[in-house]
Amino acid sequence: MSFSYASSLYCPKCTASHPLNKPINRCTCGSPLLVQYSLKELKSRLNREDLKERPPTLWRYHELLPLQKEENIISLGEGMTPLLEMKKTQHELGISRLFMKDEGLAPTGSFKARGAAVGISRAKELGIKEIAMPTNGNAGASWSLYAAKASIKSHIVMPAGSPPITRREVTIAGSDLHLVDGLISDAGKIIARLAEKYGWFDVSTLKEPYRIEGKKTMGFEIAEQMKWSLPDVIVYPTGGGVGLIGIYKAFRELIELGWINKEDMPRLVAVQAEECAPIVKAFEEKKRVSTFWPDSKTAAFGINVPKAIGDFLVLEAIYRTNGMAISVSDERLLAEQRRIARQEGIFVCPEGAAAFAAVRELRNQGWIRPDHTVVCLNTGMGIKYSEIIEVEATLLQPDDT
Amino acid sequence: MSFSYASSLYCPKCTASHPLNKPINRCTCGSPLLVQYSLKELKSRLNREDLKERPPTLWRYHELLPLQKEENIISLGEGMTPLLEMKKTQHELGISRLFMKDEGLAPTGSFKARGAAVGISRAKELGIKEIAMPTNGNAGASWSLYAAKASIKSHIVMPAGSPPITRREVTIAGSDLHLVDGLISDAGKIIARLAEKYGWFDVSTLKEPYRIEGKKTMGFEIAEQMKWSLPDVIVYPTGGGVGLIGIYKAFRELIELGWINKEDMPRLVAVQAEECAPIVKAFEEKKRVSTFWPDSKTAAFGINVPKAIGDFLVLEAIYRTNGMAISVSDERLLAEQRRIARQEGIFVCPEGAAAFAAVRELRNQGWIRPDHTVVCLNTGMGIKYSEIIEVEATLLQPDDT
Ligand SMILES: [Zn+2]
Ligand SMILES: [Zn+2]
Repeated sequence: MSFSYASSLYCPKCTASHPLNKPINRCTCGSPLLVQYSLKELKSRLNREDLKERPPTLWRYHELLPLQKEENIISLGEGMTPLLEMKKTQHELGISRLFMKDEGLAPTGSFKARGAAVGISRAKELGIKEIAMPTNGNAGASWSLYAAKASIKSHIVMPAGSPPITRREVTIAGSDLHLVDGLISDAGKIIARLAEKYGWFDVSTLKEPYRIEGKKTMGFEIAEQMKWSLPDVIVYPTGGGVGLIGIYKAFRELIELGWINKEDMPRLVAVQAEECAPIVKAFEEKKRVSTFWPDSKTAAFGINVPKAIGDFLVLEAIYRTNGMAISVSDERLLAEQRRIARQEGIFVCPEGAAAFAAVRELRNQGWIRPDHTVVCLNTGMGIKYSEIIEVEATLLQPDDT
Repeated sequence: MSFSYASSLYCPKCTASHPLNKPINRCTCGSPLLVQYSLKELKSRLNREDLKERPPTLWRYHELLPLQKEENIISLGEGMTPLLEMKKTQHELGISRLFMKDEGLAPTGSFKARGAAVGISRAKELGIKEIAMPTNGNAGASWSLYAAKASIKSHIVMPAGSPPITRREVTIAGSDLHLVDGLISDAGKIIARLAEKYGWFDVSTLKEPYRIEGKKTMGFEIAEQMKWSLPDVIVYPTGGGVGLIGIYKAFRELIELGWINKEDMPRLVAVQAEECAPIVKAFEEKKRVSTFWPDSKTAAFGINVPKAIGDFLVLEAIYRTNGMAISVSDERLLAEQRRIARQEGIFVCPEGAAAFAAVRELRNQGWIRPDHTVVCLNTGMGIKYSEIIEVEATLLQPDDT
């Protein structure tokens, strides 16, 4: 048994193939690259039951991850986050079963840890010494800390408006941090220039092929946690959209392995904020790519991405699964954040709250039906941007009664 | 097989026994109560190997927890936090193996989730409708959110100087929050008065018997994750000390079950801050109880507890395991926090950092030897009090290169 069954990199645009054994950013045609696995070979050697006794981290799926050697794993214990039934909310909305995949229980408090764990482990395996990336905050925090553990130097550029906590995480990790008076798209342009100038490896979203492999483990876990019977609908807050692309890729790999049925592929829903909804606009216009969304803004900072490099892959996953793209207002997502805390005991991040607000809307529209099983991704902890919550308290003196 | 093998409550001071079937705070003699289990009966029915296929939450140990019925579980996915080998730090300090049990990967980002999960589940099982507690922040955040999920009303009093994030967690959970211009000991006195006045159930540390049962699962997990061969030393940042008492209780139960060897009992180390070290003072004076520490202060807010109600149990656990109590300065623990982020990729809380600073000191003193295996508890995420970290960054304009 090999540790990994990754065989090559393939281009989803021009179908070119590239080898795995050296650092690579994108295809010569400019498209992101994806990892190909020898799934037929693996199918005859691994059963889904073999996973049962493995440790509860994403590395339990190592045959379906790109890392070649176990010794190169850089792990902070990421993966196997809880899948929680939201009993009060499903009853309130009139849905058979509603689950939260709670990515707040990850190192650095967000789902970004998955991409960082696999991306940094591969970077170390390939001998990369310095990485650079733009971020809205959480990804930079995760990659900085994993890079520190791997003794890789990291250069991070984030918008000056990004959450203060994530800047402190990057600082304490010892990364080289820059704030830009602009959006993540501006940060991305700066990183592209600096990376080329100084020879840093650019690990921007989909500019290296391994982050998505970490993210796809959310799909594996949902399948395994539901005992290989998938939900009808999966709802995902979408900025760069790598998680959604990853989950779709995961299910296609599991179908090829015969671990899940093709007919059970869930309908994938991309949720965006009303004032940053390029994917939703493209979906409504039945386009295959999105256009840059000017002057974007939202309290759900992580999905403030005016143009995603992988937009065509997100839209393809939506179209192929008979899915949906929908936007919600900041007012509604913030109200949903409070409602979930009070009903379900979880302080979700605004992005996660957007997904639940979308479920409410899709249920009202009848697109989600009463007999459906729905899984929502909460992509991180609410405390990472908790400044928006105004404390309600009285002040007492020690001798008050 | 019963779901729980809890048989009664016993008093560690006067040895009185109390029934499990109704709400109770303390023994008639004033002492905290502890849960007794029918371990002989359980020994003949459960093997440690039976745990392997259970879900990775603390409820995998349900026979050794007080909840009578599975349907009463209030869970946010707590437990089975990672046990991470700190390769660079163990090499730097010259210790055979140093592990971090990372309780930052818990709901609400701290180990308090364990006590809240079991405490709230039991409160719900016993029909309690309103709870009240003092807190330095993290416990209040955890209990508020678990109480919200259980539809139990919660009343929280915390020092006005407590971490802002934890106040926001309590607010979003919909709890009744009060800030007191004083310490947790002042908050405790207010809660005692209000609980009596309004008939709220007082869930202060060791004023109800179930929080410690949640905390003890840290001991079960360390044992299981180390394949039932225990470390030589366990280092625990100590405020109220419930985790340390719980870990000691866990190991004694595992010895009775024959799952671990009596001779393998680890030496337990309580770590406090130099300016709040009542347990350390009592230990140095070979006392069985501590005295109130006046004007206590420390950046490790969670261990700013001038007098712990369970001090005699903490000291007993230390003495019986041939353990140790030691204090570290804020300056050293904050330096350690930064070092761990840069070496190990984990932004630990100041309390967790205190434990690592203590390991460094005990290694220098020779008390921890080169051949030792040591486990440190990181009790929560650094981001919960991240205001102490000053951001280091440059500001760029979008067209900068
Ligand atoms: Zn191509
Ligand atoms: Zn008694």
